[in-house]
Amino acid sequence: MAEAYGAAEKVTTEMAAASLADPALEQSHGRVFIKTILNGAEEFVGRRVVVGGWVKTGREQGKGAFAFLELNDGSCLANLQVIVDAGVCSLAQLTPTGTSVLMEGELKKPPEGVKQSVELRVEKVLEVGLVDSAKYPLPKTRLTLEFLRDFVHFRARTNTISAVARIRNELAYATHTYFRENGFRYVHTPIITTSDCEGAGEMFQVTTLFSEAEKIEKELNQNPPPQESDIEAAKLIVKEKGESVSHLKSLKASKEKIVGAVSELTKAKESLAKLEERFNMKGGIPHKEGKIDFAHDFFGRQAFLTVSGQLQVETYACALGNVYTFGPTFRAEHSHTSRHLAEFWMVEPEIAFANLEDDMNYAESYVKFLCKWLLDHCLEDMEFMVKNVDKTAIERLKHVSLMPFERISYTKAVQLLENVTDKEFENKVEWGVDLASEHERYLTEVIFKKPVIVYNYPKGIKAFYMRQNDDGKTVAAMDVLVPKVGELIGGSQREERLDVLKQRILEMGLPLEPYDWYLDLRRFGTVKHCGFGLGFERMVLFATGLDNIRDVMPFPRYPGRADL
Amino acid sequence: MAEAYGAAEKVTTEMAAASLADPALEQSHGRVFIKTILNGAEEFVGRRVVVGGWVKTGREQGKGAFAFLELNDGSCLANLQVIVDAGVCSLAQLTPTGTSVLMEGELKKPPEGVKQSVELRVEKVLEVGLVDSAKYPLPKTRLTLEFLRDFVHFRARTNTISAVARIRNELAYATHTYFRENGFRYVHTPIITTSDCEGAGEMFQVTTLFSEAEKIEKELNQNPPPQESDIEAAKLIVKEKGESVSHLKSLKASKEKIVGAVSELTKAKESLAKLEERFNMKGGIPHKEGKIDFAHDFFGRQAFLTVSGQLQVETYACALGNVYTFGPTFRAEHSHTSRHLAEFWMVEPEIAFANLEDDMNYAESYVKFLCKWLLDHCLEDMEFMVKNVDKTAIERLKHVSLMPFERISYTKAVQLLENVTDKEFENKVEWGVDLASEHERYLTEVIFKKPVIVYNYPKGIKAFYMRQNDDGKTVAAMDVLVPKVGELIGGSQREERLDVLKQRILEMGLPLEPYDWYLDLRRFGTVKHCGFGLGFERMVLFATGLDNIRDVMPFPRYPGRADL
Repeated sequence: MAEAYGAAEKVTTEMAAASLADPALEQSHGRVFIKTILNGAEEFVGRRVVVGGWVKTGREQGKGAFAFLELNDGSCLANLQVIVDAGVCSLAQLTPTGTSVLMEGELKKPPEGVKQSVELRVEKVLEVGLVDSAKYPLPKTRLTLEFLRDFVHFRARTNTISAVARIRNELAYATHTYFRENGFRYVHTPIITTSDCEGAGEMFQVTTLFSEAEKIEKELNQNPPPQESDIEAAKLIVKEKGESVSHLKSLKASKEKIVGAVSELTKAKESLAKLEERFNMKGGIPHKEGKIDFAHDFFGRQAFLTVSGQLQVETYACALGNVYTFGPTFRAEHSHTSRHLAEFWMVEPEIAFANLEDDMNYAESYVKFLCKWLLDHCLEDMEFMVKNVDKTAIERLKHVSLMPFERISYTKAVQLLENVTDKEFENKVEWGVDLASEHERYLTEVIFKKPVIVYNYPKGIKAFYMRQNDDGKTVAAMDVLVPKVGELIGGSQREERLDVLKQRILEMGLPLEPYDWYLDLRRFGTVKHCGFGLGFERMVLFATGLDNIRDVMPFPRYPGRADL
Repeated sequence: MAEAYGAAEKVTTEMAAASLADPALEQSHGRVFIKTILNGAEEFVGRRVVVGGWVKTGREQGKGAFAFLELNDGSCLANLQVIVDAGVCSLAQLTPTGTSVLMEGELKKPPEGVKQSVELRVEKVLEVGLVDSAKYPLPKTRLTLEFLRDFVHFRARTNTISAVARIRNELAYATHTYFRENGFRYVHTPIITTSDCEGAGEMFQVTTLFSEAEKIEKELNQNPPPQESDIEAAKLIVKEKGESVSHLKSLKASKEKIVGAVSELTKAKESLAKLEERFNMKGGIPHKEGKIDFAHDFFGRQAFLTVSGQLQVETYACALGNVYTFGPTFRAEHSHTSRHLAEFWMVEPEIAFANLEDDMNYAESYVKFLCKWLLDHCLEDMEFMVKNVDKTAIERLKHVSLMPFERISYTKAVQLLENVTDKEFENKVEWGVDLASEHERYLTEVIFKKPVIVYNYPKGIKAFYMRQNDDGKTVAAMDVLVPKVGELIGGSQREERLDVLKQRILEMGLPLEPYDWYLDLRRFGTVKHCGFGLGFERMVLFATGLDNIRDVMPFPRYPGRADL
């Protein structure tokens, strides 16, 4: 480049130049990831590298002659051992937990008997970001997950939350890879919607009415709002101007004169309209006939945050065949449980020319794929979970990735649960009533000791879009239950018959009109199709063995809390 | 499986069984994608397959003895030619455009001189979804994109929109692949937020106040609302109960009696609180001191839809190093242009231990990667775009994937534009003023004829979080400008110095308190870091050559419109 970058820093550019000779070192444009070093320890011995990261622990040794640092850069769980001599840098600056350092040095083989395979002898400290230990909220290494929830902006620096982040990242990429390999296309369904998927879910409303009202209020504070007398006066002017036009017309006055008078009338009308608008806005939110008038809202009507992309993604399935959506969904429910969030991510495939059995086949193969992927790509973090969170986490992944899932009808599931004698359920089991979490977990954890798919549920407890079976009592729905979390996936074959679907909507007490576009898919070239939804955070809970969903979502939202 | 599936359909299961002997045919659990057939035409000749799709065009031939159908299943742009004899099925049912068909037959080599490499001789029609041509909204093959916007639930069945969907899908997967290969982790930043990234953007508010008010209104309709006299009466009871407690205490009455009286007092207080709540709710939205009281809203305060995940993803960059977010973002702006949506997707990487030059390097290599990916994975759809939308679409991708981007400072860009003599700009070019779209496009399309990165912008026109350069006048910001769309990427090095950042926030007239967590990242182990945002729909416009952003988003949202 001919031109200089002004004040832009040059440090990493120089690094990039220094490492150009060795492509293996070209990571993050100069900096080498600690993961890369530790994975290839043998071949890195003797090389000069630049590394950056945050100090996990630091201690001065040899009466202050040098310091050992455990450095982590988030590229993996393991830290790089670093040795800095007092001559290189002020050691007291480097040792506090949380300090960031970018440094250059030579990778060496540590003395025999040391567990590290390689360590960094620092020659130059390029950058330091200081920490005042007395004020740093995360000074200690062991903090409860609950405590960390008050510091979502720092908690990714802990072992547990950074491992969760890497596992989550792998599960997301595995999801895209699985569907791609199976001929699915990713479709972005809308977040803001005017449809309600369930006809029941508690939804968040999206609005600009409050900010609009605030703007008008400010404007009214600057310019005094009109009084009723102002309106009356303006009405009088309109009346006069109108009469003047009539008068001129009756006199057969010149066209010019009439046009002039009409123009004055128009102006008077506009001025009246403006006054009336400001007068009516005095109350803040616009009203009409005693109700809030959403015609003034951004989309000209009420709009909400989606509870599921299913209905919309069906339109793409009925054109592209195999599609899926993976995006945020929302529930405005006042749940304070460890299993619910107001904002969560959902994976929703939708498959044309497919029935309930295809649906179960896809669900099973997708879950198995995810489990196997973590074993292949994320073992270090999974081993951390085994050691610190859930002894059985890896075993569970192996088990699920290998064993065929059990498949039983809802009717059979109820029979099995009714015959249970070694446990008292809090909720009664009865045909026609939805299974409670305790029943689901008993089926998968105790009776079958593996994932169970329960299918053909009573229609009374399921959504209108699920395909009615010939028995008239059940619908082609299925839930995948897994140990540790219970329901992981819910899906169904969709009702493709126009008349049956209409009847189901009406049976549920819902109006037909909002679903007219959805019915159109059945009116024109309808196909048998099916789909399911996997709660992404549930999958992360299942994989990690963690108990609280607030710890597997980077920025959890729940009643009363939306930090950052 | 031992148990029968009740009413669940068996068709595709049988298909799956039929094709099990031949793994190459195992697509979508029985059905073979048309893409698979056409890609391997030679080897498919003579095989029996099941295909499903929608009829693009159908015509009876040989005096109704047979029909030709062009069948499309969305797996690729091309159709499969299908021949059905009148003996197999009612031909009149099959020929209308939009009809869905699932059918079984043998793939044959067509007669010499026919352009198709393979065609299907149908032996059995398994399923048909009828279309009444007179009522189908998309009967013709050529419809304007504008017309199609009124039928978002059907438009993916057209060539253009389905090609866009496949290109969009490839760009999304390419994005995840690029960042994965470069050591980035995907982080889900929040959609609902209490932070405002720009301190300026028009935001949508997320609320449950309207639905809560509606609930209370319903309840008040069923149970008459309290009158002021009811409140007074309830207050009197509280007073009496309070006096009774005091009286008992002064008499040193038994503990039992006092506890009883206190319990009655508590009940009276609760009852008063409930009455007061209902009384205050009469007006609908809860108010406090003349203002709407958002303490009653779901999150206990005002919450909005995110305009960018940047600030939040910085917290993960300052822990994991290289991260990115890819999610929906929102602007409540009343723009009716062809370049703006109220809801759109953004890709936002964030890189620790990196400066503005690193930022530009990543931006350039990412865009090149996307272009190359489309050429490698999506050529058929790109060729369609060249033929029907923009002759230069493929040429542009090749050009961008190969040529180094030009990099010039903002100051230089202004100089160049000031010296332009062959064109009159609508907006004046002047140092200190933001470049308009016409300037950006002139730079990339006319002056350099390739992508241009403009860096070091005047601080007065950029956000508070951008790193101030040593000249005191500019910040380390950069925009990537590309032919056809202008600004594709905006990014910057972030201000990592606590004192400078604080001063910038105050200079902008913003309060410090809401950014306290953001400042914390600079207080404790701060690092130089940078990042950028790519408007995903802009990238699709750039790739396809389409003009209107409403045609590259599956379900576009803009003022007055949020269909489905």
